[in-house]
Amino acid sequence: MTEQPRQLHLNLFGVGTGRHEAAWRHPDADPIGALGIETLQRNAQIAERGKFDAVFVADSPWIGPMSPHGVRATLDPIVTMTALAGVTSRIGLIATLSTTYSEPYTVARALASLDQVSGGRSGWNVVTTSEAAVAANFGDAPFPSHEERYARGEEFVDVVLALWDSWEHGAIVADKANGIHADLDKIRPIDFVGKYFTVRGPLNVVRSPQEKPLIVQAGSSPVGRAFGAKYADAIFTAQPLLDGAQQAYADIKAHAAAFGRDPDAVKVLPGLCPVIGDTEQAAQDLLDELNELVIPAFGIASLHTMTGIDLSGVPLDEPLPDRLGDSEGFQGLTSRLKVVLSLAEGRQLTARQLLNTFAAGFGHKMVVGTPEQVADEMQFLFENRAADGFNVMPPVVPRGLEDFVDQVVPLLQRRGIFRRDYTGRTLRSHYDAELG
Amino acid sequence: MTEQPRQLHLNLFGVGTGRHEAAWRHPDADPIGALGIETLQRNAQIAERGKFDAVFVADSPWIGPMSPHGVRATLDPIVTMTALAGVTSRIGLIATLSTTYSEPYTVARALASLDQVSGGRSGWNVVTTSEAAVAANFGDAPFPSHEERYARGEEFVDVVLALWDSWEHGAIVADKANGIHADLDKIRPIDFVGKYFTVRGPLNVVRSPQEKPLIVQAGSSPVGRAFGAKYADAIFTAQPLLDGAQQAYADIKAHAAAFGRDPDAVKVLPGLCPVIGDTEQAAQDLLDELNELVIPAFGIASLHTMTGIDLSGVPLDEPLPDRLGDSEGFQGLTSRLKVVLSLAEGRQLTARQLLNTFAAGFGHKMVVGTPEQVADEMQFLFENRAADGFNVMPPVVPRGLEDFVDQVVPLLQRRGIFRRDYTGRTLRSHYDAELG
Repeated sequence: MTEQPRQLHLNLFGVGTGRHEAAWRHPDADPIGALGIETLQRNAQIAERGKFDAVFVADSPWIGPMSPHGVRATLDPIVTMTALAGVTSRIGLIATLSTTYSEPYTVARALASLDQVSGGRSGWNVVTTSEAAVAANFGDAPFPSHEERYARGEEFVDVVLALWDSWEHGAIVADKANGIHADLDKIRPIDFVGKYFTVRGPLNVVRSPQEKPLIVQAGSSPVGRAFGAKYADAIFTAQPLLDGAQQAYADIKAHAAAFGRDPDAVKVLPGLCPVIGDTEQAAQDLLDELNELVIPAFGIASLHTMTGIDLSGVPLDEPLPDRLGDSEGFQGLTSRLKVVLSLAEGRQLTARQLLNTFAAGFGHKMVVGTPEQVADEMQFLFENRAADGFNVMPPVVPRGLEDFVDQVVPLLQRRGIFRRDYTGRTLRSHYDAELG
Repeated sequence: MTEQPRQLHLNLFGVGTGRHEAAWRHPDADPIGALGIETLQRNAQIAERGKFDAVFVADSPWIGPMSPHGVRATLDPIVTMTALAGVTSRIGLIATLSTTYSEPYTVARALASLDQVSGGRSGWNVVTTSEAAVAANFGDAPFPSHEERYARGEEFVDVVLALWDSWEHGAIVADKANGIHADLDKIRPIDFVGKYFTVRGPLNVVRSPQEKPLIVQAGSSPVGRAFGAKYADAIFTAQPLLDGAQQAYADIKAHAAAFGRDPDAVKVLPGLCPVIGDTEQAAQDLLDELNELVIPAFGIASLHTMTGIDLSGVPLDEPLPDRLGDSEGFQGLTSRLKVVLSLAEGRQLTARQLLNTFAAGFGHKMVVGTPEQVADEMQFLFENRAADGFNVMPPVVPRGLEDFVDQVVPLLQRRGIFRRDYTGRTLRSHYDAELG
């Protein structure tokens, strides 16, 4: 961190046909192929060629809103990341697992196992699950409140960390001559007793190559941010505007410091949707082409699920009403709701324009232009402390990802702000993260 | 099933250094290497070379009894099987997952995902978990009774089957021109409401290549057997004696028929521990060599955990007392308890002999001899309706597995009772199992 100039961190946000809501309709997309694992395996390999830190996939254990214009089918995150481990050798593998709808022993074990089979490349995107409809797949209990989910989530992470720490290295001695298999002093129960969890331990997986898998967190509400500043090695966020991004960046770093942590050890990674063309016009044409494919009814349902904003019945091509739908009592992604409201604020957007903006980036930062322009914007945000790096969300894959890796990454490397090659083998080494 | 003579089915019972309790101490074993995935990957490849139906790994989500003479570390079953999928192409992959300590939505999704990434090779060994100590890793609720576990387990399987059936093939139509992504008539909520589970569905994974992953079951108690006869495509069992094996075989087939199923569709697969040598004496020498390495204190703890029998304080080299320890109120593997008692019954075994027998086979059928003798015994059990095939449990791996694949499998093939090559690509095709 001292001798070398500060370096960007890049993750691939892995989605079937691309981040744009209508990507599957684009001629370059293969929406049937994307149901299998091969598409993501190929994209992870492209990202690894681009020396990305990691690949991650968003996840929620339900099907999402059912629409003929778009149904989500998403392979299990642990299956996915293990399958990616087998076809890559350096890139990190960040699995999204919910603290509301899993058990800490199971999650700790799965991620420690992924760490073993990947040689120290596993990470955990800790989510508390934001969609109330998920509850119906896991019993008859109501969806917990935002506060309740975070309280449980915090305790969940404490248990997982304790389980990962329940083995020391070298606990299995395997002394054949004397019949001593293990040094029991190095394997300890955790005897955790909390409000939500009681877990004896120890884990039944040896200490992982990374000591502990990387912890990533994406909640941007005040309680979510405190949670991230306390536990996370990297924080994913949605920041489409410079001011908001810089404020969030400073706030996260200050929170981390308040928890006694080195602020540099918490990487702030907003989403970035790069729409790349040989000319600025070509890039804009690609975006227009994708926006043309947006189906408003689907966008309205998607926006409603994610933010509580209800545009149904609102005329598409007139300026938006002052008050956007009814989001009272909304228990989902409240921070994303604010982002979307900030995009609409004082800009006289029509409903269609808001839907297109949301379809293209889901509230994340968009950059539409040449590779040079994309690199410029990234460097600007990076140097002006709006970001330590980005979750790269190509609008259509593999094309958008290949363009980024082949045309933008070399510019970042030439400017000395992104690695030319991996220096370590573990995900923590890519992030210069503290050991566990 | 009609034109070809009845065929054996063989699974590899995958364990780190081998099935014998003291295998890790054998000069051929690599107990440190076996902590990673590569050992099992290599063994799965050897089994695939031997045209085995499947590889499976026993599992329980706790560390097991802690002893310096043996500590269990077992990678997560889904990570394990996905990692095996990446290095094999035909062999089935059976993951052991507990109905007592998981959620049906999670299990259905993980196995459907494994089925996708393996091209239709996933199977589920349904267990209800037999060790009371597991409960302490999952909250403060007491370990449920045998009856309660099976009642929950049965409902759990019903939910999983319904979720696997919640998508029809071809549900994703991906009609780009018209913007129709999915045919919603082919994706249905399950709206399951039971005593233990309430699950809306649908699953968020497309219908799997096998229609439904293979269902395997290993409980041998009356309620376990009924459960297996109702749901399972294959039943794993421990039958060291011919009479018991034939009775169990007939009983399982009768139960299946009583459920209106084709008895041939439920394969009965006892465990088989082949100790192979160039001569019978060489095989016996290998077994003696392994038994020499047994540490009685460890065997006593292991026997106690698995069966409730407590031999602590019993003199090792005197005939066993009439009543073996106190197994009153034992809630674990009650069927295995009976097997062990049957081994001791009327044979004037010493405690050490019982411990060695248990260490070598954990109550499973042992065959000690030349490849010819092993093949003879397998054929005898197969033809006399004691088995439809076997879970092959080599005492030390890879040596014991290689010997079996290279020396026993060719004999079985020449006798026309085992496939010379795979005829299909899915696990169900290897088992000639009914489609879902």
